[in-house]
Amino acid sequence: MQIETVLSPTLFSQISDVEHKTVVVIDILRATSTITTILHNGADAVIPVREASIAQEYKSKGYLVGGERGGETIPGFDFGNSPFHYKKEIVTGKEIVLTTTNGTKCIEMASHAHQVVVGSFLNLVAVVNHLRYMDKDVVLFCAGWKNRVNVEDSLYAGAVAQRLKSEEVDDATLLCIDAYDASKDNLFAALKKSNHFQRLASKGVTKDIAYCCETDIINSVGVLSTDRIILA
Amino acid sequence: MQIETVLSPTLFSQISDVEHKTVVVIDILRATSTITTILHNGADAVIPVREASIAQEYKSKGYLVGGERGGETIPGFDFGNSPFHYKKEIVTGKEIVLTTTNGTKCIEMASHAHQVVVGSFLNLVAVVNHLRYMDKDVVLFCAGWKNRVNVEDSLYAGAVAQRLKSEEVDDATLLCIDAYDASKDNLFAALKKSNHFQRLASKGVTKDIAYCCETDIINSVGVLSTDRIILA
Repeated sequence: MQIETVLSPTLFSQISDVEHKTVVVIDILRATSTITTILHNGADAVIPVREASIAQEYKSKGYLVGGERGGETIPGFDFGNSPFHYKKEIVTGKEIVLTTTNGTKCIEMASHAHQVVVGSFLNLVAVVNHLRYMDKDVVLFCAGWKNRVNVEDSLYAGAVAQRLKSEEVDDATLLCIDAYDASKDNLFAALKKSNHFQRLASKGVTKDIAYCCETDIINSVGVLSTDRIILA
Repeated sequence: MQIETVLSPTLFSQISDVEHKTVVVIDILRATSTITTILHNGADAVIPVREASIAQEYKSKGYLVGGERGGETIPGFDFGNSPFHYKKEIVTGKEIVLTTTNGTKCIEMASHAHQVVVGSFLNLVAVVNHLRYMDKDVVLFCAGWKNRVNVEDSLYAGAVAQRLKSEEVDDATLLCIDAYDASKDNLFAALKKSNHFQRLASKGVTKDIAYCCETDIINSVGVLSTDRIILA
Protein backbone atom coordinates (compact mmCIF):
# COMPACT_ATOMS: atom_id res chain seq x y z
CA MET A 1 0.00 0.00 0.00
CA GLN A 2 1.56 3.24 -1.20
CA ILE A 3 1.02 6.34 0.96
CA GLU A 4 1.40 9.90 -0.26
CA THR A 5 0.76 13.08 1.71
CA VAL A 6 -0.41 16.34 0.17
CA LEU A 7 0.59 19.13 2.54
CA SER A 8 -1.36 21.88 0.75
CA PRO A 9 -4.19 21.86 -1.83
CA THR A 10 -1.73 23.60 -4.18
CA LEU A 11 0.23 20.32 -4.33
CA PHE A 12 -2.71 18.00 -4.99
CA SER A 13 -2.18 18.05 -8.76
CA GLN A 14 1.10 16.14 -8.21
CA ILE A 15 -0.90 13.03 -7.33
CA SER A 16 -1.52 10.67 -10.22
CA ASP A 17 -4.14 7.93 -10.60
CA VAL A 18 -6.38 9.49 -7.96
CA GLU A 19 -9.30 7.43 -9.27
CA HIS A 20 -7.61 4.28 -7.99
CA LYS A 21 -6.76 5.67 -4.55
CA THR A 22 -8.47 6.35 -1.25
CA VAL A 23 -8.14 10.03 -0.38
CA VAL A 24 -8.41 11.08 3.26
CA VAL A 25 -9.44 14.73 3.49
CA ILE A 26 -8.01 16.33 6.63
CA ASP A 27 -9.21 19.61 8.11
CA ILE A 28 -8.72 18.96 11.81
CA LEU A 29 -9.65 22.49 12.98
CA ARG A 30 -12.51 22.02 12.57
CA ALA A 31 -14.40 20.87 9.45
CA THR A 32 -13.55 17.18 9.31
CA SER A 33 -13.67 16.82 13.11
CA THR A 34 -17.10 18.44 13.13
CA ILE A 35 -18.39 16.30 10.24
CA THR A 36 -17.21 13.14 12.03
CA THR A 37 -19.03 14.28 15.16
CA ILE A 38 -22.25 15.14 13.32
CA LEU A 39 -22.43 11.66 11.75
CA HIS A 40 -21.54 10.01 15.05
CA ASN A 41 -24.40 11.93 16.66
CA GLY A 42 -26.85 10.28 14.31
CA ALA A 43 -27.23 12.56 11.29
CA ASP A 44 -28.07 10.73 8.08
CA ALA A 45 -25.61 12.81 6.07
CA VAL A 46 -23.54 15.97 6.01
CA ILE A 47 -23.71 18.05 2.85
CA PRO A 48 -20.57 20.18 2.66
CA VAL A 49 -20.90 23.41 0.67
CA ARG A 50 -18.39 26.16 0.04
CA GLU A 51 -20.60 29.23 0.00
CA ALA A 52 -22.90 30.51 2.71
CA SER A 53 -25.36 31.47 -0.05
CA ILE A 54 -25.70 27.81 -1.11
CA ALA A 55 -26.27 26.80 2.51
CA GLN A 56 -28.90 29.53 2.64
CA GLU A 57 -30.72 27.95 -0.31
CA TYR A 58 -30.77 24.61 1.50
CA LYS A 59 -32.04 26.41 4.61
CA SER A 60 -34.96 27.80 2.66
CA LYS A 61 -35.82 24.22 1.61
CA GLY A 62 -36.01 23.19 5.27
CA TYR A 63 -32.54 21.77 5.90
CA LEU A 64 -30.64 22.38 9.11
CA VAL A 65 -27.56 24.40 8.19
CA GLY A 66 -24.33 25.22 9.95
CA GLY A 67 -21.49 27.60 9.35
CA GLU A 68 -19.75 30.68 10.60
CA ARG A 69 -17.84 33.57 9.22
CA GLY A 70 -15.35 35.60 11.23
CA GLY A 71 -15.97 33.39 14.26
CA GLU A 72 -19.72 34.08 14.48
CA THR A 73 -22.58 31.76 13.50
CA ILE A 74 -24.02 33.05 10.23
CA PRO A 75 -27.28 34.93 11.01
CA GLY A 76 -30.28 32.63 10.57
CA PHE A 77 -28.16 29.45 10.61
CA ASP A 78 -28.85 26.64 13.07
CA PHE A 79 -25.24 26.01 14.07
CA GLY A 80 -21.76 27.49 13.91
CA ASN A 81 -18.66 25.40 13.12
CA SER A 82 -18.17 24.06 16.65
CA PRO A 83 -18.64 20.30 16.99
CA PHE A 84 -20.44 21.01 20.28
CA HIS A 85 -23.31 22.71 18.46
CA TYR A 86 -24.44 19.50 16.75
CA LYS A 87 -26.20 17.73 19.60
CA LYS A 88 -27.61 14.25 19.15
CA GLU A 89 -31.20 15.26 19.87
CA ILE A 90 -31.10 17.89 17.12
CA VAL A 91 -29.19 16.12 14.32
CA THR A 92 -30.38 12.52 14.57
CA GLY A 93 -32.02 11.38 11.35
CA LYS A 94 -31.35 14.70 9.62
CA GLU A 95 -29.24 15.80 6.67
CA ILE A 96 -27.07 18.67 7.83
CA VAL A 97 -25.63 21.27 5.48
CA LEU A 98 -22.25 22.63 6.57
CA THR A 99 -20.46 25.51 4.93
CA THR A 100 -16.69 25.40 5.26
CA THR A 101 -13.95 26.77 3.04
CA ASN A 102 -10.72 24.77 3.13
CA GLY A 103 -12.24 21.34 3.85
CA THR A 104 -15.02 21.53 1.26
CA LYS A 105 -12.62 22.66 -1.45
CA CYS A 106 -10.49 19.55 -0.86
CA ILE A 107 -13.50 17.24 -0.89
CA GLU A 108 -14.45 18.70 -4.29
CA MET A 109 -10.88 18.42 -5.61
CA ALA A 110 -10.70 14.76 -4.57
CA SER A 111 -14.20 13.75 -5.64
CA HIS A 112 -12.92 11.61 -8.52
CA ALA A 113 -10.98 9.39 -6.11
CA HIS A 114 -11.87 5.76 -5.65
CA GLN A 115 -13.24 6.93 -2.31
CA VAL A 116 -13.03 10.11 -0.22
CA VAL A 117 -12.75 9.55 3.53
CA VAL A 118 -13.16 12.22 6.22
CA GLY A 119 -10.25 12.19 8.68
CA SER A 120 -10.08 13.26 12.32
CA PHE A 121 -8.21 12.32 15.47
CA LEU A 122 -11.60 11.52 17.02
CA ASN A 123 -11.85 8.36 14.89
CA LEU A 124 -8.19 7.81 14.03
CA VAL A 125 -8.08 4.03 14.41
CA ALA A 126 -11.45 3.64 12.66
CA VAL A 127 -10.04 5.57 9.67
CA VAL A 128 -6.87 3.45 9.67
CA ASN A 129 -8.89 0.24 9.77
CA HIS A 130 -11.11 1.51 6.99
CA LEU A 131 -8.07 2.28 4.82
CA ARG A 132 -6.73 -1.22 5.42
CA TYR A 133 -10.13 -2.66 4.52
CA MET A 134 -10.26 -0.63 1.29
CA ASP A 135 -6.77 -1.92 0.45
CA LYS A 136 -6.06 0.83 -2.10
CA ASP A 137 -3.14 3.23 -2.24
CA VAL A 138 -3.74 6.14 0.13
CA VAL A 139 -3.50 9.91 -0.26
CA LEU A 140 -3.50 11.94 2.96
CA PHE A 141 -4.83 15.28 1.78
CA CYS A 142 -4.24 18.14 4.22
CA ALA A 143 -6.59 21.07 3.70
CA GLY A 144 -4.16 23.50 5.30
CA TRP A 145 -5.10 27.12 5.74
CA LYS A 146 -5.62 29.19 2.60
CA ASN A 147 -3.29 26.83 0.72
CA ARG A 148 -0.57 27.11 3.34
CA VAL A 149 0.76 24.08 5.21
CA ASN A 150 -0.62 23.70 8.70
CA VAL A 151 0.56 21.73 11.71
CA GLU A 152 -2.63 20.01 12.83
CA ASP A 153 -3.48 18.44 9.46
CA SER A 154 0.14 17.40 8.89
CA LEU A 155 0.38 15.76 12.32
CA TYR A 156 -2.81 13.82 11.61
CA ALA A 157 -1.34 12.62 8.29
CA GLY A 158 1.66 11.39 10.32
CA ALA A 159 -0.60 9.66 12.83
CA VAL A 160 -2.44 7.73 10.11
CA ALA A 161 0.70 6.87 8.16
CA GLN A 162 2.53 5.66 11.25
CA ARG A 163 -0.31 3.25 12.02
CA LEU A 164 -0.54 1.96 8.44
CA LYS A 165 3.12 0.87 8.69
CA SER A 166 3.64 0.88 4.93
CA GLU A 167 7.13 0.70 3.45
CA GLU A 168 6.05 2.70 0.42
CA VAL A 169 5.70 6.24 1.67
CA ASP A 170 6.70 9.47 0.00
CA ASP A 171 8.94 12.05 1.65
CA ALA A 172 6.07 14.33 2.70
CA THR A 173 4.66 11.38 4.63
CA LEU A 174 8.03 10.65 6.26
CA LEU A 175 8.19 14.27 7.38
CA CYS A 176 4.72 14.04 8.94
CA ILE A 177 5.51 10.74 10.69
CA ASP A 178 8.64 12.26 12.25
CA ALA A 179 6.76 15.39 13.32
CA TYR A 180 3.91 13.31 14.76
CA ASP A 181 6.42 11.16 16.62
CA ALA A 182 7.84 14.26 18.27
CA SER A 183 4.37 15.56 19.24
CA LYS A 184 2.12 12.58 19.82
CA ASP A 185 2.37 12.57 23.59
CA ASN A 186 0.98 16.07 23.73
CA LEU A 187 -0.92 16.97 20.61
CA PHE A 188 -2.65 19.88 22.26
CA ALA A 189 0.68 21.46 23.19
CA ALA A 190 1.94 20.94 19.61
CA LEU A 191 -1.18 22.56 18.20
CA LYS A 192 -0.89 25.42 20.65
CA LYS A 193 2.21 26.61 18.81
CA SER A 194 0.41 26.59 15.46
CA ASN A 195 -0.77 29.67 13.61
CA HIS A 196 -4.31 28.33 13.37
CA PHE A 197 -4.57 27.73 17.11
CA GLN A 198 -3.68 31.32 17.70
CA ARG A 199 -6.35 32.46 15.24
CA LEU A 200 -9.03 30.23 16.79
CA ALA A 201 -8.05 30.65 20.44
CA SER A 202 -8.49 34.37 20.06
CA LYS A 203 -12.09 33.56 19.10
CA GLY A 204 -12.57 31.60 22.31
CA VAL A 205 -12.69 28.12 20.83
CA THR A 206 -9.94 26.51 22.91
CA LYS A 207 -12.50 23.94 24.09
CA ASP A 208 -13.17 22.97 20.46
CA ILE A 209 -9.46 22.57 19.79
CA ALA A 210 -9.00 20.36 22.86
CA TYR A 211 -11.90 18.23 21.63
CA CYS A 212 -10.46 17.95 18.11
CA CYS A 213 -7.23 16.55 19.64
CA GLU A 214 -9.09 13.76 21.44
CA THR A 215 -8.16 10.46 19.89
CA ASP A 216 -10.33 7.40 19.23
CA ILE A 217 -13.54 8.41 20.93
CA ILE A 218 -15.57 7.64 17.77
CA ASN A 219 -15.65 4.32 15.91
CA SER A 220 -17.39 5.28 12.68
CA VAL A 221 -16.02 6.78 9.46
CA GLY A 222 -17.57 9.29 7.06
CA VAL A 223 -17.15 8.80 3.31
CA LEU A 224 -18.27 10.85 0.34
CA SER A 225 -21.23 9.52 -1.62
CA THR A 226 -21.91 11.82 -4.59
CA ASP A 227 -22.42 15.19 -2.90
CA ARG A 228 -22.87 14.13 0.71
CA ILE A 229 -20.91 12.47 3.45
CA ILE A 230 -22.42 9.38 5.01
CA LEU A 231 -21.20 6.66 7.32
CA ALA A 232 -19.13 3.97 5.57
CA MET B 1 12.64 37.72 13.06
CA GLN B 2 9.89 35.98 11.17
CA ILE B 3 10.69 32.55 9.68
CA GLU B 4 8.73 30.90 6.89
CA THR B 5 9.48 27.60 5.21
CA VAL B 6 8.61 26.80 1.60
CA LEU B 7 8.43 23.02 1.29
CA SER B 8 8.16 22.95 -2.51
CA PRO B 9 8.90 25.51 -5.26
CA THR B 10 5.18 25.29 -6.09
CA LEU B 11 4.47 27.05 -2.78
CA PHE B 12 7.02 29.86 -3.15
CA SER B 13 4.44 32.29 -4.56
CA GLN B 14 2.72 32.30 -1.12
CA ILE B 15 5.62 34.31 0.27
CA SER B 16 5.10 38.05 0.25
CA ASP B 17 7.65 40.86 0.49
CA VAL B 18 10.47 38.61 -0.69
CA GLU B 19 12.55 41.69 -1.52
CA HIS B 20 12.82 42.46 2.20
CA LYS B 21 13.75 38.93 3.25
CA THR B 22 16.78 36.65 3.27
CA VAL B 23 16.01 33.50 1.31
CA VAL B 24 18.01 30.36 2.03
CA VAL B 25 17.93 28.03 -0.97
CA ILE B 26 18.18 24.40 0.14
CA ASP B 27 19.06 21.51 -2.14
CA ILE B 28 20.98 19.27 0.22
CA LEU B 29 21.42 16.36 -2.22
CA ARG B 30 23.53 17.72 -3.74
CA ALA B 31 23.51 21.15 -5.39
CA THR B 32 23.77 23.48 -2.40
CA SER B 33 26.13 21.15 -0.54
CA THR B 34 28.36 20.98 -3.60
CA ILE B 35 28.28 24.77 -4.15
CA THR B 36 29.26 25.32 -0.50
CA THR B 37 32.15 22.88 -0.92
CA ILE B 38 33.37 24.46 -4.17
CA LEU B 39 33.55 27.92 -2.57
CA HIS B 40 35.19 26.49 0.55
CA ASN B 41 37.80 24.87 -1.71
CA GLY B 42 38.80 28.27 -3.00
CA ALA B 43 36.78 28.94 -6.13
CA ASP B 44 36.10 32.62 -6.77
CA ALA B 45 32.48 31.95 -7.71
CA VAL B 46 29.97 29.31 -8.73
CA ILE B 47 27.74 30.16 -11.68
CA PRO B 48 24.62 28.00 -11.47
CA VAL B 49 22.86 27.31 -14.77
CA ARG B 50 19.82 25.22 -15.54
CA GLU B 51 20.68 23.77 -18.92
CA ALA B 52 23.66 21.67 -19.91
CA SER B 53 23.75 23.61 -23.21
CA ILE B 54 24.39 26.88 -21.34
CA ALA B 55 27.17 25.21 -19.36
CA GLN B 56 28.55 24.00 -22.68
CA GLU B 57 28.71 27.60 -23.93
CA TYR B 58 30.68 28.61 -20.83
CA LYS B 59 32.95 25.59 -21.40
CA SER B 60 33.73 26.80 -24.92
CA LYS B 61 34.76 30.15 -23.40
CA GLY B 62 37.26 28.35 -21.16
CA TYR B 63 35.32 27.96 -17.91
CA LEU B 64 35.52 24.80 -15.83
CA VAL B 65 32.04 23.26 -15.89
CA GLY B 66 30.31 20.59 -13.84
CA GLY B 67 27.13 18.64 -14.15
CA GLU B 68 25.66 15.26 -14.73
CA ARG B 69 22.61 13.74 -16.28
CA GLY B 70 21.30 10.31 -15.38
CA GLY B 71 24.09 9.86 -12.84
CA GLU B 72 26.93 10.30 -15.34
CA THR B 73 29.22 13.31 -15.78
CA ILE B 74 28.13 15.10 -18.95
CA PRO B 75 30.59 14.19 -21.77
CA GLY B 76 33.30 16.84 -22.07
CA PHE B 77 32.52 18.37 -18.65
CA ASP B 78 35.22 18.73 -16.00
CA PHE B 79 33.16 17.50 -13.04
CA GLY B 80 29.97 15.63 -12.18
CA ASN B 81 27.68 16.74 -9.33
CA SER B 82 29.66 15.07 -6.55
CA PRO B 83 31.25 17.48 -4.05
CA PHE B 84 34.32 15.23 -4.11
CA HIS B 85 35.05 16.14 -7.73
CA TYR B 86 35.83 19.77 -6.90
CA LYS B 87 39.29 19.46 -5.42
CA LYS B 88 41.09 22.48 -4.01
CA GLU B 89 44.00 22.28 -6.43
CA ILE B 90 41.64 22.40 -9.41
CA VAL B 91 39.04 24.99 -8.36
CA THR B 92 41.11 27.55 -6.43
CA GLY B 93 40.84 30.99 -8.01
CA LYS B 94 38.43 29.78 -10.69
CA GLU B 95 34.83 30.51 -11.57
CA ILE B 96 33.02 27.18 -11.80
CA VAL B 97 29.87 26.69 -13.83
CA LEU B 98 27.49 24.11 -12.37
CA THR B 99 24.38 22.84 -14.07
CA THR B 100 21.66 21.63 -11.69
CA THR B 101 17.90 21.51 -12.08
CA ASN B 102 16.00 21.91 -8.79
CA GLY B 103 18.52 24.10 -6.98
CA THR B 104 19.16 26.53 -9.84
CA LYS B 105 15.44 26.99 -10.46
CA CYS B 106 14.97 28.08 -6.83
CA ILE B 107 17.91 30.47 -6.95
CA GLU B 108 16.33 32.12 -10.02
CA MET B 109 12.89 32.24 -8.37
CA ALA B 110 14.32 33.93 -5.28
CA SER B 111 16.72 36.27 -7.06
CA HIS B 112 14.64 39.36 -6.13
CA ALA B 113 15.12 38.65 -2.42
CA HIS B 114 17.08 41.02 -0.21
CA GLN B 115 19.71 38.30 -0.30
CA VAL B 116 19.88 34.66 -1.46
CA VAL B 117 21.96 32.38 0.75
CA VAL B 118 23.07 28.85 -0.14
CA GLY B 119 22.22 26.37 2.64
CA SER B 120 23.87 23.10 3.61
CA PHE B 121 24.47 21.04 6.75
CA LEU B 122 28.19 21.43 6.04
CA ASN B 123 28.03 25.08 7.13
CA LEU B 124 24.86 25.05 9.22
CA VAL B 125 26.03 27.27 12.07
CA ALA B 126 27.75 29.65 9.65
CA VAL B 127 24.43 30.05 7.79
CA VAL B 128 22.55 30.60 11.06
CA ASN B 129 25.06 33.23 12.17
CA HIS B 130 24.85 34.92 8.79
CA LEU B 131 21.03 35.07 9.01
CA ARG B 132 21.30 36.63 12.48
CA TYR B 133 23.80 39.14 11.14
CA MET B 134 21.52 40.04 8.20
CA ASP B 135 18.69 40.54 10.72
CA LYS B 136 15.93 40.27 8.10
CA ASP B 137 12.93 37.96 8.03
CA VAL B 138 13.96 34.55 6.73
CA VAL B 139 12.51 32.24 4.09
CA LEU B 140 13.80 28.66 4.11
CA PHE B 141 13.24 27.59 0.52
CA CYS B 142 13.40 23.83 -0.03
CA ALA B 143 14.12 22.87 -3.63
CA GLY B 144 12.50 19.47 -3.19
CA TRP B 145 12.48 17.01 -6.05
CA LYS B 146 10.53 17.94 -9.17
CA ASN B 147 8.31 20.18 -7.05
CA ARG B 148 7.61 17.43 -4.52
CA VAL B 149 8.47 17.81 -0.84
CA ASN B 150 11.64 16.03 0.19
CA VAL B 151 12.97 14.93 3.55
CA GLU B 152 16.54 16.18 3.43
CA ASP B 153 15.71 19.79 2.53
CA SER B 154 12.87 19.90 5.07
CA LEU B 155 15.09 18.57 7.86
CA TYR B 156 17.67 21.22 7.07
CA ALA B 157 14.99 23.91 7.27
CA GLY B 158 14.13 22.52 10.71
CA ALA B 159 17.79 22.57 11.74
CA VAL B 160 18.20 26.24 10.81
CA ALA B 161 14.88 27.30 12.35
CA GLN B 162 15.56 25.48 15.60
CA ARG B 163 18.85 27.33 15.97
CA LEU B 164 17.36 30.73 15.15
CA LYS B 165 14.95 30.29 18.08
CA SER B 166 12.41 32.74 16.72
CA GLU B 167 8.91 32.93 18.17
CA GLU B 168 7.48 33.99 14.82
CA VAL B 169 7.50 30.84 12.73
CA ASP B 170 4.88 29.55 10.33
CA ASP B 171 3.39 26.08 10.55
CA ALA B 172 5.58 24.61 7.81
CA THR B 173 8.58 25.64 9.89
CA LEU B 174 7.10 24.09 13.05
CA LEU B 175 6.62 20.84 11.14
CA CYS B 176 10.26 20.87 10.02
CA ILE B 177 11.53 21.65 13.51
CA ASP B 178 9.59 18.70 14.93
CA ALA B 179 10.80 16.37 12.18
CA TYR B 180 14.39 17.55 12.65
CA ASP B 181 14.09 17.03 16.38
CA ALA B 182 13.10 13.42 15.79
CA SER B 183 15.98 12.82 13.34
CA LYS B 184 18.86 15.03 14.37
CA ASP B 185 20.82 12.36 16.21
CA ASN B 186 21.04 10.31 13.06
CA LEU B 187 20.48 12.38 9.96
CA PHE B 188 21.98 9.77 7.70
CA ALA B 189 19.49 7.15 8.91
CA ALA B 190 16.64 9.62 8.39
CA LEU B 191 17.79 10.37 4.87
CA LYS B 192 18.19 6.67 4.15
CA LYS B 193 14.42 6.29 4.29
CA SER B 194 13.90 9.11 1.79
CA ASN B 195 12.92 8.67 -1.85
CA HIS B 196 15.89 10.69 -3.04
CA PHE B 197 18.38 8.57 -1.10
CA GLN B 198 17.05 5.52 -2.83
CA ARG B 199 17.40 7.19 -6.23
CA LEU B 200 20.96 8.34 -5.53
CA ALA B 201 22.18 5.27 -3.64
CA SER B 202 21.29 3.15 -6.65
CA LYS B 203 23.76 5.35 -8.55
CA GLY B 204 26.49 4.58 -6.06
CA VAL B 205 26.68 7.97 -4.38
CA THR B 206 26.18 6.86 -0.78
CA LYS B 207 29.53 8.44 0.08
CA ASP B 208 28.26 11.80 -1.25
CA ILE B 209 25.10 11.53 0.85
CA ALA B 210 27.09 10.75 4.00
CA TYR B 211 29.24 13.81 3.28
CA CYS B 212 26.18 16.06 2.73
CA CYS B 213 24.94 15.04 6.21
CA GLU B 214 28.15 16.19 7.89
CA THR B 215 27.47 19.22 10.02
CA ASP B 216 29.61 22.30 10.60
CA ILE B 217 32.78 21.33 8.81
CA ILE B 218 32.75 24.59 6.80
CA ASN B 219 32.67 28.11 8.22
CA SER B 220 31.91 30.17 5.13
CA VAL B 221 28.60 31.02 3.44
CA GLY B 222 27.75 31.41 -0.24
CA VAL B 223 25.43 34.23 -1.33
CA LEU B 224 24.05 35.20 -4.70
CA SER B 225 25.59 38.26 -6.36
CA THR B 226 23.78 38.96 -9.65
CA ASP B 227 24.25 35.66 -11.51
CA ARG B 228 26.94 34.02 -9.44
CA ILE B 229 27.45 32.70 -5.96
CA ILE B 230 30.33 34.09 -3.99
CA LEU B 231 31.45 33.98 -0.38
CA ALA B 232 29.60 36.42 1.88
